[in-house]
Amino acid sequence: MKQRIVTISRTYGSGGRIIGQKLAEDMGVPFYDKALIDRIAEESGFSKDLIENAEMKAKNSFIYTLATSLGGSGDAGIEGLSLNDKCFLAQVNVIRKIAEEGPCVIVGRCADYILRDMPEVTNIFVCAEMHNRIQRAVEEYGMDKTNVENEIKKIDKARTNYYTHHTGRKWGDILNYHLTLDSGYIGLEDTIAVIEEFLERRKY
Amino acid sequence: MKQRIVTISRTYGSGGRIIGQKLAEDMGVPFYDKALIDRIAEESGFSKDLIENAEMKAKNSFIYTLATSLGGSGDAGIEGLSLNDKCFLAQVNVIRKIAEEGPCVIVGRCADYILRDMPEVTNIFVCAEMHNRIQRAVEEYGMDKTNVENEIKKIDKARTNYYTHHTGRKWGDILNYHLTLDSGYIGLEDTIAVIEEFLERRKY
Repeated sequence: MKQRIVTISRTYGSGGRIIGQKLAEDMGVPFYDKALIDRIAEESGFSKDLIENAEMKAKNSFIYTLATSLGGSGDAGIEGLSLNDKCFLAQVNVIRKIAEEGPCVIVGRCADYILRDMPEVTNIFVCAEMHNRIQRAVEEYGMDKTNVENEIKKIDKARTNYYTHHTGRKWGDILNYHLTLDSGYIGLEDTIAVIEEFLERRKY
Repeated sequence: MKQRIVTISRTYGSGGRIIGQKLAEDMGVPFYDKALIDRIAEESGFSKDLIENAEMKAKNSFIYTLATSLGGSGDAGIEGLSLNDKCFLAQVNVIRKIAEEGPCVIVGRCADYILRDMPEVTNIFVCAEMHNRIQRAVEEYGMDKTNVENEIKKIDKARTNYYTHHTGRKWGDILNYHLTLDSGYIGLEDTIAVIEEFLERRKY
């Protein structure tokens, strides 16, 4: 397998994380999911809890917040940012550093946007139909059956808010990814094989 | 190559039509692009010109139009529909008939939506970055260089309106397709190979 930098964005329950992990194994490169949170915590001093839960707390546009706190009278500066926004800036620094270190697979965390200027990055989006997502959420992540669809929708909403807040882009916009797959259509193993086929065919 | 029903949606200049044609050749199944327009004209009596240009004329929601003309006092019925909407109904009938006839490749014309209840249909979306689309539009479709980006955006807008008008869905929504590819990232030939790999791996 050719070694590359790959970002994976995914809807909850689509198996995107497992796909990323297997892909990193096959390529023989580092996999950043929980390891990314550890590293951001280590390098920034923010708690793992704060970094991990930032997704559920995003509300307004980060770009707007940044513009208003850095612009205007110039009084506020970076100190005027919320804790979550400072935490995102730390995340940007760590993800850029990781990408400079070489090939890897990064799941979530707006990595597709953060690394958008690097031509060696391949951006992949994994989705699945609701019935596949429910099945995975209940059977593999142990979610309560009775309210699972609402919970999944709540996580989708949080990911959308988090992404838009920090990037000004729409999460899951087809034009932001080089390859998008419905993992339920051919199953996880075959989805990984098609992704690897796609990566192999990239010339540089 | 396994024979299947495949719909291809695409942004203008992404090479989606050429990809569809090659795919149909490799599968040994009929290819419906211009041939679809001929067949709708033949079966409905509408002119090819009207069918071909319907995309550029869609404005309001078709579903809304249909609801208001079929519902309410019941006076208007199907006769209350615009010519373009009647033309779309003819298109729905022909596309359903074609799909019942067996494996084929259909480009555009909301076929992904029209055939959404058929599990044997695979929906593919092909996109590309603007610089690739401009190159193809100028070199292969002979578009005037000076205004090409605006023309492409105008066609995108028309396709979005046409799709939303007739389906009530957002055109290019990542969740409506089983596979989405940026054709400029690995080139047309390799894009076709990855699509064929994906289709081969579908179990039924």
